[in-house]
Amino acid sequence: MKKNIAVIHGDGIGPEVTTQATKVLHAIAEKFNHEWQFTDCLMGAVAIDKTGNPLPDETIEVCLNSDAILFGAIGDPKYDNDPSAKVRPEQGLLKLRKALQLYANVRPVTTYPALHHLSPLKEKQLKNVDFVIYRELTGGIYFGKKELSSDKTQAIDECIYNTNEIERIAHAAFKAAMQRKKQLTLVDKANVLETSRLWRSVVQNVAQNYTDVKVSYLFVDNAAMQIILNPAQFDVILTENMFGDILSDEASVLSGSLGLLPSASFGISTALFEPIHGSYPQAAGKDIANPLGAILSAAMMLDYFGLNTEAAVVKAAVNWTLTHKFVTKDIDPINFYFTSTIGELICDFI
Amino acid sequence: MKKNIAVIHGDGIGPEVTTQATKVLHAIAEKFNHEWQFTDCLMGAVAIDKTGNPLPDETIEVCLNSDAILFGAIGDPKYDNDPSAKVRPEQGLLKLRKALQLYANVRPVTTYPALHHLSPLKEKQLKNVDFVIYRELTGGIYFGKKELSSDKTQAIDECIYNTNEIERIAHAAFKAAMQRKKQLTLVDKANVLETSRLWRSVVQNVAQNYTDVKVSYLFVDNAAMQIILNPAQFDVILTENMFGDILSDEASVLSGSLGLLPSASFGISTALFEPIHGSYPQAAGKDIANPLGAILSAAMMLDYFGLNTEAAVVKAAVNWTLTHKFVTKDIDPINFYFTSTIGELICDFI
Ligand SMILES: CC(C)[C@H](C(=O)O)[C@@H](O)C(=O)O
Ligand SMILES: CC(C)[C@H](C(=O)O)[C@@H](O)C(=O)O
Repeated sequence: MKKNIAVIHGDGIGPEVTTQATKVLHAIAEKFNHEWQFTDCLMGAVAIDKTGNPLPDETIEVCLNSDAILFGAIGDPKYDNDPSAKVRPEQGLLKLRKALQLYANVRPVTTYPALHHLSPLKEKQLKNVDFVIYRELTGGIYFGKKELSSDKTQAIDECIYNTNEIERIAHAAFKAAMQRKKQLTLVDKANVLETSRLWRSVVQNVAQNYTDVKVSYLFVDNAAMQIILNPAQFDVILTENMFGDILSDEASVLSGSLGLLPSASFGISTALFEPIHGSYPQAAGKDIANPLGAILSAAMMLDYFGLNTEAAVVKAAVNWTLTHKFVTKDIDPINFYFTSTIGELICDFI
Repeated sequence: MKKNIAVIHGDGIGPEVTTQATKVLHAIAEKFNHEWQFTDCLMGAVAIDKTGNPLPDETIEVCLNSDAILFGAIGDPKYDNDPSAKVRPEQGLLKLRKALQLYANVRPVTTYPALHHLSPLKEKQLKNVDFVIYRELTGGIYFGKKELSSDKTQAIDECIYNTNEIERIAHAAFKAAMQRKKQLTLVDKANVLETSRLWRSVVQNVAQNYTDVKVSYLFVDNAAMQIILNPAQFDVILTENMFGDILSDEASVLSGSLGLLPSASFGISTALFEPIHGSYPQAAGKDIANPLGAILSAAMMLDYFGLNTEAAVVKAAVNWTLTHKFVTKDIDPINFYFTSTIGELICDFI
């Protein structure tokens, strides 16, 4: 197989983890006889520094013409936390999502027995946790009209959804459920929001195409409790953009380490794969970042290409490092291995 | 002291727990020589059944003329989970909040060593947890314009805030911080929302009146992680309506039992006190509900009246029952006491 892969290294630890992930993809290509064409593109603070633009048009162009995008992390303290800054890395991120129509953000939530001791939750809660969150990523309050009154005393954000936007991600989530435990939970606030009531009715309609899937409905406040109280109850969680932002980050604490969590964002013609950990500038340049999030994101990319055997090999390699305690500093601050060493160990395993 | 207290027993286990709470308030009145005038009012499913209206005008009238309101719970499965139902208990709740201008919902989050074993979190996370969430309750997306297009393909919910709404709850939250550990965390999504940026700038202004208070800012997705990863870091969390709904329910799991968590909603001229557990219809009529949430809500009412000694006595009584394992079925399914017995034990202690 031959694929064009755009690589956005980004800021902070981004370049270090994407480098390991591309190394792993190379090892897979060699073993299974594939060919990847990698193209580096600029985005984030590094792009602002070089071009004045957090998301240069050329990057969008390259991404649109690639089969998949491997994304490290963006964000730098010098642009963060300043709500009044003219140019912010987030704008680039939201623009990229919209330009590539990355409408379905997918976050698998699983726990690794080797890391249970790091989780804030008790063992009991962690058993049989295996679900996936489908977060709508190009609509809702993120992209609705924003207004600040001229006297600056009133602000408005519009949350807006149409049936098409809901349908396409609902189909994606139901299809995922069909491949899994055949349960789908729609999380909304239908007792208060008109958009949530639209979500419910659209999902009820879409559900008729997937009669094998058991559908349930949960209010977002209750979902925020259930994810901690009884995470094993879930299979596929489907939700809108803002609720998904909150709940997927909440769910990410279960595993005991943000460093190894991958994500995928599926679009119309391409898809983006990204560790969830962010740019973590304090660790940049020290070869201590955890590359597993990026490497598992690369595994999701292989699954997306239909290369399930290859993906399974990468996941097995990751498991092997964890059970043999080949881990980075975030997981074991005393007996740790470097970012690049973990990458090499995984390549060797493959 | 003489006070008028409106009592909304409501649905499900509501009447059972409010009955224990008023019993406790009676005991306090007797011991400390106060006089409470209780007035029962209708609300919720029971009000729909009797009057066709989930919140009769008379109830609003009585509440507006009372010094405080003791609230049980509302909600009945026969009206729940039907987004298309004409009359829904939530409408009554939102109308009451608006009518009484209950703008500050306050949820203390603490853990009880006697219940640590019930918490989903590990011991380590539970140490020194003692914070309070100030949730704005009468604005935001709950009360903004809602629209469903005539062809039913598009829905809109408007999130709207003005500076006055933010200022009044910000002052309340800063005052609370002054009485506590002098730390305030504003939770928002200022990297995306215009309303959040307004919140930030208003809170920055209000902060100038409370220079002893250390202010920090946290994005809501990160807050959803931090509440589980390191809840002891917080003192006062201030946030808007929808984020507060999600985060306060999330935080409620820490204690190990929803049954004993109280809340208060402060308004312009009155305040409402309510256990957070809801109507829990499955347990209704069995004398097994946990009355501690309602009793601790009554303690918050006493604090609101300025009767801090009286409030402390009630809290001490609650602690005494917990450490002596006088607990309801939700806490110990084998060796449990009845709702009414716990109420009596607390009255006896007082
Ligand atoms: C940076 C921010 C705009 C973004 C979001 O809220 O979508 C981030 O939190 C995420 O989840 O990718
Ligand atoms: C019932 C619902 C409208 C309400 C809310 O969202 O405010 C409830 O969840 C609460 O927190 O009191």
